[in-house]
Amino acid sequence: MDLMWLTPAAAVIALLFVGFTARRVLKYSPGSAKMAEISGAISRGAAAYLKRQYSVVAVFFILMFVVLGIMAFAGYLTYYVPFAFVTGGFFSGLSGFIGMKIATAANARTANAAREGLNRGLRVAFSAGAVMGFTVVGLGLLDLSIWYYLLRYAFRLPIEEVTGAMLTFGMGASSMALFARVGGGIFTKAADVGADLVGKVEAGIPEDDPRNPAVIADNVGDNVGDVAGMGADLYESYVGSIISASALGVAAFANIDAVDGIRAVTIPMAMAALGVLFSILGTFLVRTGEKTDQKTLLGALRRGTYFSAIAIAVAAFPLVWFMLGKEYMGIYGAVISGLIAGVLIGACTEYFTSDSYKPTKRLAGSSQTGAGTLVISGLSLGMLSTFAPILIIAVSVLVSFFLSGGAHNSDLGLYGIAISAVGMLSTLGITLATDAYGPVADNAGGIAEMAGLDPEVRRRTDALDSLGNTTAATGKGFAIGSAALTALALIASYRDKVVSLAGDASILDLSIMNPRVLVGLFIGACLPFVFAALTMDSVGKAAQSIVVEVRRQFREIKGLMEGKAKPDYERCVGLCTSSALRQMILPTVIAVASPVATGLLLGVSGVCGMLGGATVSGFLLAVFMANAGGAWDNAKKHIEGGAYGGKGSDAHKAAVVGDTVGDPLKDTSGPSINILIKLLSMVSIVFAAVVVQYHLL
Amino acid sequence: MDLMWLTPAAAVIALLFVGFTARRVLKYSPGSAKMAEISGAISRGAAAYLKRQYSVVAVFFILMFVVLGIMAFAGYLTYYVPFAFVTGGFFSGLSGFIGMKIATAANARTANAAREGLNRGLRVAFSAGAVMGFTVVGLGLLDLSIWYYLLRYAFRLPIEEVTGAMLTFGMGASSMALFARVGGGIFTKAADVGADLVGKVEAGIPEDDPRNPAVIADNVGDNVGDVAGMGADLYESYVGSIISASALGVAAFANIDAVDGIRAVTIPMAMAALGVLFSILGTFLVRTGEKTDQKTLLGALRRGTYFSAIAIAVAAFPLVWFMLGKEYMGIYGAVISGLIAGVLIGACTEYFTSDSYKPTKRLAGSSQTGAGTLVISGLSLGMLSTFAPILIIAVSVLVSFFLSGGAHNSDLGLYGIAISAVGMLSTLGITLATDAYGPVADNAGGIAEMAGLDPEVRRRTDALDSLGNTTAATGKGFAIGSAALTALALIASYRDKVVSLAGDASILDLSIMNPRVLVGLFIGACLPFVFAALTMDSVGKAAQSIVVEVRRQFREIKGLMEGKAKPDYERCVGLCTSSALRQMILPTVIAVASPVATGLLLGVSGVCGMLGGATVSGFLLAVFMANAGGAWDNAKKHIEGGAYGGKGSDAHKAAVVGDTVGDPLKDTSGPSINILIKLLSMVSIVFAAVVVQYHLL
Repeated sequence: MDLMWLTPAAAVIALLFVGFTARRVLKYSPGSAKMAEISGAISRGAAAYLKRQYSVVAVFFILMFVVLGIMAFAGYLTYYVPFAFVTGGFFSGLSGFIGMKIATAANARTANAAREGLNRGLRVAFSAGAVMGFTVVGLGLLDLSIWYYLLRYAFRLPIEEVTGAMLTFGMGASSMALFARVGGGIFTKAADVGADLVGKVEAGIPEDDPRNPAVIADNVGDNVGDVAGMGADLYESYVGSIISASALGVAAFANIDAVDGIRAVTIPMAMAALGVLFSILGTFLVRTGEKTDQKTLLGALRRGTYFSAIAIAVAAFPLVWFMLGKEYMGIYGAVISGLIAGVLIGACTEYFTSDSYKPTKRLAGSSQTGAGTLVISGLSLGMLSTFAPILIIAVSVLVSFFLSGGAHNSDLGLYGIAISAVGMLSTLGITLATDAYGPVADNAGGIAEMAGLDPEVRRRTDALDSLGNTTAATGKGFAIGSAALTALALIASYRDKVVSLAGDASILDLSIMNPRVLVGLFIGACLPFVFAALTMDSVGKAAQSIVVEVRRQFREIKGLMEGKAKPDYERCVGLCTSSALRQMILPTVIAVASPVATGLLLGVSGVCGMLGGATVSGFLLAVFMANAGGAWDNAKKHIEGGAYGGKGSDAHKAAVVGDTVGDPLKDTSGPSINILIKLLSMVSIVFAAVVVQYHLL
Repeated sequence: MDLMWLTPAAAVIALLFVGFTARRVLKYSPGSAKMAEISGAISRGAAAYLKRQYSVVAVFFILMFVVLGIMAFAGYLTYYVPFAFVTGGFFSGLSGFIGMKIATAANARTANAAREGLNRGLRVAFSAGAVMGFTVVGLGLLDLSIWYYLLRYAFRLPIEEVTGAMLTFGMGASSMALFARVGGGIFTKAADVGADLVGKVEAGIPEDDPRNPAVIADNVGDNVGDVAGMGADLYESYVGSIISASALGVAAFANIDAVDGIRAVTIPMAMAALGVLFSILGTFLVRTGEKTDQKTLLGALRRGTYFSAIAIAVAAFPLVWFMLGKEYMGIYGAVISGLIAGVLIGACTEYFTSDSYKPTKRLAGSSQTGAGTLVISGLSLGMLSTFAPILIIAVSVLVSFFLSGGAHNSDLGLYGIAISAVGMLSTLGITLATDAYGPVADNAGGIAEMAGLDPEVRRRTDALDSLGNTTAATGKGFAIGSAALTALALIASYRDKVVSLAGDASILDLSIMNPRVLVGLFIGACLPFVFAALTMDSVGKAAQSIVVEVRRQFREIKGLMEGKAKPDYERCVGLCTSSALRQMILPTVIAVASPVATGLLLGVSGVCGMLGGATVSGFLLAVFMANAGGAWDNAKKHIEGGAYGGKGSDAHKAAVVGDTVGDPLKDTSGPSINILIKLLSMVSIVFAAVVVQYHLL
């Protein structure tokens, strides 16, 4: 029974659903002329940024295309790899672009709908999030289907070469994702920090005040960072987990006559397809009444995600059964373990970052003794919060490995680990929808403020936005957890690739007492630190340029503070754009160059060490940064809600410092690390043939 | 030619030198009655703290003695291990105690000597540092000698059992060191942060003002944290590096008939002994004129350390030649690589943390846009600063491994890595002297302030203190670098131990694709994060209790602010003591329990993964924390020196926040991690026999 057709079918259904939902969103009115004008300014800024970003990225892709072309010509790669690389990047970028388009179209519409009621506002924002979510999964499955059918039926390659080739197009998606996350992340946080530092702290005007010259840039940032950046990011995670599972599946069953390798590939592909269908059904369950409390709203969103997760958990059972048979049902256990791990990591994130729980409440309390103790407490909270996710991933890895039969056949165990990542991401369509709706609500709030709508509208959008922070935390848990599992699967894929290239396994001594592995571990573990340092510093630099510009406008534009003159919004957008684009290049180049340099020096064992080190330390840093940043953000909100003297108190000032520190951690450096650790593996795989042949030690 | 006698001889010479130097320090006058009184209060506070610390630690040691005794009775350990454990802890504690005694005796004497001139002040402070430095190396070599001769000649054990047994007494030293570092670190930073937050920030009185109730506690902290804690810490590093090199040497030459294992043990032992002698000679080169600029003073200290390092580099050549012969001269290369790596890591630390260089200058500049951007920049600086030390360690590991012949015999290569750590630490006597003199000068400045001496005296002690920050940075470089190399050597020792216990190597599959190793890596890498989180949080909690107490005294003691009434210093000392002791227990218990728990669950391969993960992430975090903290501290000093508006400016307020954040990072959490990563290995070695027999996976 060939179920591979499910994948293109699900891709088409997802994209039809996207079209249908987008049309429905666009039917809503964007509200008053003023609202449409603001929304238009945001939309133009975001489009202008993305256009320039894609031009810069295009240069990188052309260069890499040439490099890969030369390598293919020299026999180190098959000739379709350069093309696969480009399509991966193209679809990843397209996901981000479409997400951004709908988000900027939906922000004013959400604000306008929120005038009529909370439920209506939620529908519009959530629908926009759904467009984004299903664009990502739809284009992902489309890209996978195209290459699968092309390679298998047009080029008539055997299945192991099909999956091997598909692995390489992950590199295109990962590179694109890194550019989008880093560039968008720098843009959004530079604008946010810059706007806050001068506006809130120095001039004492509220957030989203139209007199602040950086306010449009701040709203543009939400769209290019939190929407377009996240879209490209999760496209990469999604596709990466499916192709690494497929490649490992073929390797695992290569010597098992009873099971055809195609069946092992079908499982992740078909599971992803089913996940899309259940996610679509899940979206219809998201609706709420007029009560605005967090719990009801969260319940509405959770109904959708839980339904989808349970449905896929049920459907995976017959899928594994029919594909592999009773003997390999342990692999179903891996699916379940991945799903549970994703939910648990999300719950941990929520526990550590929501002000309904003790850690963030305590953090808020430490603001009473000033910014210093607040920052210490936040760093401590973030570091401590790594423990539970590490244990969850550890248990998930062990359970997936051993249930799948890793004790006797370690390839099967590694396949199990990869499958658990696919399980975790199978319902990405809806989890991403609940995640991406946050920035839309955030933007809607900004528009409500700038357009001077009834405060009740802002209250409603704030309720939506605040909920968005919680769902974003859950989303981050999934992103980080799946990144770690996928990265491990990719290391295994790399090892398989090297062994098949070298023809025997003796080239690899992966013992951690091998100094090449050890040194690789050290270098790899250092990369996320360096990468985070560079991206944080970029935000700092870019934010400082915004501060200088905003101060200048306050000083030079007469009547600005009195609301008689308009600030020059475009200049701030332009500054953020040029800083972000300039600053995103070095980190990405380091990510691409490191595995090649390490490989040429230390050989393939060193590369494996490096990948292991980067995965481990990257996971820790990503969790630390996401949670410390999230907790500072919510501690500030907690104080703004009236605790410890509320807005304007000393505690609040300290909390604003904490929030400023946390911003680049949680929205720029942290999320980029998830992509980094996978891009390192992807690059290693593509350059494996060169490294196998040339290395110093 | 048996050169082992060098070790006890050097131990005796070092201890005689300690006695001689201590007498010379005590001959100086402690100054006025007021100075003696203040010094007495500090001394009593420190002694009271250490007494209580040792009582708490004694309970732990008794418990562990019983546990180890039961294990010995059950046949899992040889019966002298519990005793070795206790002596390791005893000598480590004794080193700290003697160091603290001389430091508290020398503080007023340094202040008084500084009245007569800078050079005299330097002599007293440096002599006190030398007492501490040579106590550590003297007691270290004494302990090593006693056990070596006892086991070898009284118990007539073969050499491999001698080194095996000596490894286990490292666990005692490491446990003691961890208690001392964590407890002392919490004490000193709680007092420092607490005193600053209320005194400097709220009440607006200067540092070391006698009206501040926490001022004595602050000065006590310097002694129990920076002196006693560091003494115990480096005792552990020193002894640990020598015994792990010895054990690996015996294993490496076990199958090489031409070289007796004893010769392989003699090299680290004799090199340490020669290092002590050259260090003593080096101390005589440390003197200065009356010019107070940093450069001259630093030149004076460096003359001593460079002389010792060059002398040991020269002397190691004939040592290796006569012991092992021409064929193994590559091991000499390992010695040199260790020495160079130590110097280079120190130079990197200085580059990133001294305000003579760009990074800290830029950091100070970022204070202009507020505490938020300053903290971001500092975090970024700290993370970026991990890159060069990682590369230095990587190169040092590769050079030591391959030069020592690791390509053909990996045991020889691992021996080379261990020897490079010994090379790095061979001149510990003098590097520790230059490091430990800092807190003495710091205390002297406090006494000068409190006793109302001529401002010129304070200016001189400030010059000494400020230099102390630079030498402390260099010292930290050595401590971190040697910790990483020693930890790697200990992992190799653990592996050897397990193989010898199990009788064959098949029990170990150390491939990073083995899920046990992989999960071990994740868990191990997480431990330094959790450990740092707990210790930072402890500082925060303890500091908050000091803040509350100081506020209370300001409020309730009439006439305190006018200088008419005295504050209750003892209460603050007592509060710090009880907080520090309460808070130091959990982190230490985690450090001891983790390897046992990991081993029982994942088996010996999992333990190796855990140790590797902890070493890698611990090294990164330790460098990050030390450098971020050091840079914030010096950025604040840079601003206090007049940059960006100087003291009292907004930039300065931001810099104070940065300094507060950096304090626990650089003086509590960061340094403790160095001990943690070695203690994990030591505990693993001691419990190896149990884990080999019982494990789940």
